[in-house]
Amino acid sequence: MATGFAHEIRVGWGDCDPAKIAYTGRIPEWALASIDAWWEAHLDGDGWFQMELDRGYGTPFVSMQLDFRHPITPRHRLICRVHPVRLGTKSISFAVSGFQNDVLCFEGEFTNVFVDPNGFQSIPAPVEVRALVAPMLPG
Amino acid sequence: MATGFAHEIRVGWGDCDPAKIAYTGRIPEWALASIDAWWEAHLDGDGWFQMELDRGYGTPFVSMQLDFRHPITPRHRLICRVHPVRLGTKSISFAVSGFQNDVLCFEGEFTNVFVDPNGFQSIPAPVEVRALVAPMLPG
Amino acid sequence: MATGFAHEIRVGWGDCDPAKIAYTGRIPEWALASIDAWWEAHLDGDGWFQMELDRGYGTPFVSMQLDFRHPITPRHRLICRVHPVRLGTKSISFAVSGFQNDVLCFEGEFTNVFVDPNGFQSIPAPVEVRALVAPMLPG
Amino acid sequence: MATGFAHEIRVGWGDCDPAKIAYTGRIPEWALASIDAWWEAHLDGDGWFQMELDRGYGTPFVSMQLDFRHPITPRHRLICRVHPVRLGTKSISFAVSGFQNDVLCFEGEFTNVFVDPNGFQSIPAPVEVRALVAPMLPG
Repeated sequence: MATGFAHEIRVGWGDCDPAKIAYTGRIPEWALASIDAWWEAHLDGDGWFQMELDRGYGTPFVSMQLDFRHPITPRHRLICRVHPVRLGTKSISFAVSGFQNDVLCFEGEFTNVFVDPNGFQSIPAPVEVRALVAPMLPG
Repeated sequence: MATGFAHEIRVGWGDCDPAKIAYTGRIPEWALASIDAWWEAHLDGDGWFQMELDRGYGTPFVSMQLDFRHPITPRHRLICRVHPVRLGTKSISFAVSGFQNDVLCFEGEFTNVFVDPNGFQSIPAPVEVRALVAPMLPG
Repeated sequence: MATGFAHEIRVGWGDCDPAKIAYTGRIPEWALASIDAWWEAHLDGDGWFQMELDRGYGTPFVSMQLDFRHPITPRHRLICRVHPVRLGTKSISFAVSGFQNDVLCFEGEFTNVFVDPNGFQSIPAPVEVRALVAPMLPG
Repeated sequence: MATGFAHEIRVGWGDCDPAKIAYTGRIPEWALASIDAWWEAHLDGDGWFQMELDRGYGTPFVSMQLDFRHPITPRHRLICRVHPVRLGTKSISFAVSGFQNDVLCFEGEFTNVFVDPNGFQSIPAPVEVRALVAPMLPG
């Protein structure tokens, strides 16, 4: 149902384990790449790399939580939907859910803090991020 | 303080991102490898591979939850402690915590269900697993 | 100059090491995924997974060779071009070259043998593969 | 037969593909980690991370070549032997070979150049590296 940003992952042979489904360890990586791609889509093409090197802020993770609902295979593309769900003074949380052939395969929530790349001190959410994200938050 | 099983990970250059710390996406993989190594240490050298192929049961993940407490770097080995914390009729949960130089870097909880590799149907915890794990559970 | 099949890779923060370029260990994985995608594009949507499980032949690697020409970063998509370059009785070789912003970043050659998935015995190149690939080979 | 430095890899379920052997894409990563571990064993505990950040030189790869001789599985540890085989004015080459249960599984050669981390300019092999490696080279 949910619309909004979606990031497509090509699941391949090399992502699968002997049970013939995607190895669990790959799924957090796909969720993270989808969040990185979310930033890129919303910050003029700048993902985590450019945020840290060009814009002067990093967003390390403080937590992640994932529920695995259905096996993932190479038979369909994996569509990862990303939504910001919370914006704290110094943190941001995203919901990520992955679908194959319209079936929910995983869903999770991920929280990052904003830091100064020099010294790793936490900082308030940058003004440009607050302006971008605040209107997107669930009512 | 906690004793019990520990799995050592060599953190290297290739695990680190431009922030000069281990990339978040690597950490769930290390936690999973540590659980796999826990089985190997407790089932006569058989990890997930032999459990599925030789012993006839698989343990796919239904959830994971991780808190990241401290950056991980190549300057120390990462010591991952694994403990079973819950044994349901058809599931098992593990706590995994990772330390570098005695500093807690991450902690998390992971739940698997037992399945028949042919058909992926859930099954009760195998007798040999119940006998192994029950005495280890927290009082 | 070369046209033909191209597979696009999104290079992200998590692919980069502290030198702020893609970690070398990621590059063979991208080349392999590009070959897998080449099959998918040429076999009615079937990549290595379906070749092994549905079509009854596998293509394990016997060698790879890579030259790294230019650093890879998240600032551009990585375009991987794949061409079959040799078809032996029981083997196939691919050339893969990766470009960012029209600059050659890596090039390599990869050789697979055809095997029966049951028992891993080498087999002649399947008829459907020979029919597909023979017309594509360099003069 | 060859003695010298060996790095042990724990091959697990998550490293294997549906053919029930280690996925090819994992093998270059293991070879690289073994070279990183070789430096660590020979430079007072400093691998690529400390070489770049503390000692002031990097060693990016310019080429790799691998032959895959035998499938790798979780049934044995993978023992990776590393030897420097060539030291140029500005480059170094390593041979890496991987064994399971005394069977050769892969062998390869890898060449790095020395660079200044600031600007990525190639530099002569550092004096400390030349002193270390020269006596180890094959006659």
